[in-house]
Amino acid sequence: MEKSGKIEVRSKIWLEVDGEPVLGGGREELLRQIGRHGSINAAARQMKISYRKAWTAIAAMEERLGFPLVHRQKGGAGGGESTLTPEAEALLEKFDRLCTGINAMVDGKFREIF
Amino acid sequence: MEKSGKIEVRSKIWLEVDGEPVLGGGREELLRQIGRHGSINAAARQMKISYRKAWTAIAAMEERLGFPLVHRQKGGAGGGESTLTPEAEALLEKFDRLCTGINAMVDGKFREIF
Repeated sequence: MEKSGKIEVRSKIWLEVDGEPVLGGGREELLRQIGRHGSINAAARQMKISYRKAWTAIAAMEERLGFPLVHRQKGGAGGGESTLTPEAEALLEKFDRLCTGINAMVDGKFREIF
Repeated sequence: MEKSGKIEVRSKIWLEVDGEPVLGGGREELLRQIGRHGSINAAARQMKISYRKAWTAIAAMEERLGFPLVHRQKGGAGGGESTLTPEAEALLEKFDRLCTGINAMVDGKFREIF
């Protein structure tokens, strides 16, 4: 048997509504990219997914959550700008706080037990 | 937009050695089933995986962790009994405590923020 490496703890956190995922992993990153680029198109490119897939994900999140996440503005050539709604900003901020707090607690609990 | 359901938090915890998973999800359940049934074969059946896959998973975990998890006893017809090593029992017990503690903290943190 080979010498063992160091055991580490990993965790993943996500939000669900009615058993369906609404935030965490790819969905969170998609929203953050939309906020950064002001464009669903640019965010989808960044995430290496199609515009259609990004749009479908946003629509599913919005339906499950019951509030709008992305405000689409129709534009001319190149499409309009898309911005996060205040509700989306608030949700991302809360989720960020949740993950930060939990990561610290997971590490602490792990060091306590292992 | 439809009425929203209740937002809930979900979390997944696992252990890694050198960036490779060693416990959590299926691997944990496989060990628990071996402990319960005293047989890799029965545990594999329960998990709906092949004996070969179960064996490979155990060998990979043992190599990464650097200690034996399953004690195989050669037997006659039907194969010998397999039991968890004390190290495996201790690891499962610690992991169980880790998960219980973290689940409680995740719920608490979620209620605090959301």
